[in-house]
Amino acid sequence: MPHIVLPEELPGITAGFAFRPETAKPMRELAHVLLHASGNDGFTSADRELLAAFVSSRNTCYFCQTSHGAAAAHLHEGGETVVNAVCSDYKSAPISNKLKALLAIAEQVQIDGKRVTADLIAKAKAEGATDLDIHDTVLIAAAFCMYNRYVDGLATWQPRDPAMYVEMGKRMAMQGYVSGKDPDTRSEQR
Amino acid sequence: MPHIVLPEELPGITAGFAFRPETAKPMRELAHVLLHASGNDGFTSADRELLAAFVSSRNTCYFCQTSHGAAAAHLHEGGETVVNAVCSDYKSAPISNKLKALLAIAEQVQIDGKRVTADLIAKAKAEGATDLDIHDTVLIAAAFCMYNRYVDGLATWQPRDPAMYVEMGKRMAMQGYVSGKDPDTRSEQR
Repeated sequence: MPHIVLPEELPGITAGFAFRPETAKPMRELAHVLLHASGNDGFTSADRELLAAFVSSRNTCYFCQTSHGAAAAHLHEGGETVVNAVCSDYKSAPISNKLKALLAIAEQVQIDGKRVTADLIAKAKAEGATDLDIHDTVLIAAAFCMYNRYVDGLATWQPRDPAMYVEMGKRMAMQGYVSGKDPDTRSEQR
Repeated sequence: MPHIVLPEELPGITAGFAFRPETAKPMRELAHVLLHASGNDGFTSADRELLAAFVSSRNTCYFCQTSHGAAAAHLHEGGETVVNAVCSDYKSAPISNKLKALLAIAEQVQIDGKRVTADLIAKAKAEGATDLDIHDTVLIAAAFCMYNRYVDGLATWQPRDPAMYVEMGKRMAMQGYVSGKDPDTRSEQR
């Protein structure tokens, strides 16, 4: 049972968002920029969702790991197999060396930002990571340390129906995290 | 030295914000709502800044602990003494029992949201905490697990000049975290 009175029919973070629209707005916008709107050939939305699912798995946040894992599976040509491989042992997963290097940075940020070393950064740059890729990796990992704690700290309802997450992940992957009609976010849809 | 090329003259999170305005906007807005615009008699901005400084101290993020500590010291009648007491041993600090109960929740969220127990929530409610107070406490603690990791994960410049932080904290306490001219945030100034 949630620690505070939340809308009963809404799972995970969506219940917190409905409870407090004033904080939901920037939290949705941040996820939208980081995971959806900024995806490009060098660092795709699929890669970004994989990072989100990976960090959430390290924080053992069921709702975030499963929903972002489903979004990543929808976007990635390797589907669910790749998501599971990344979350269980990313170093042997069938992904690019660049993404492995970014995951190695995210792995440390999940514990403590101060654990990111110059060596990890140099390895990511050697694999072609730009400053923007590294910035976004650090912030995705940091942001999911927030989202995960928010979802779990309120003891939100986190249903165990896999089909629900597949549907949710597909919607997240296709539409992102803010309404397309929100004029605040138009400038970030680039 | 920062891990990526950041504006040299900007300390801590402000360098990350200048590097990436698209993510800075929602991150500033979230801090503004949680720490500044939502302060009220039952859960003041002084209390909220104390929570931010406390969580940052647990994450050993020098920049965030010192700047939000300075903001809290500016707002709280007990000044710096109270901030130091809260960060070293909040249970014996000269603060209300309600704030101690909220700090006990934040203390667990900083480690893992799943560590927040029904007992901790019941104690906070017994001291007069509302659902909104509890929600905002969980989210402040969660959000500083993001801000702290962002600041440290980029290896931002974190100067050691105390006077700079006093000035910064005063500005944060008085003006909040977004420009007053930003129309996006007007609705939250309630």
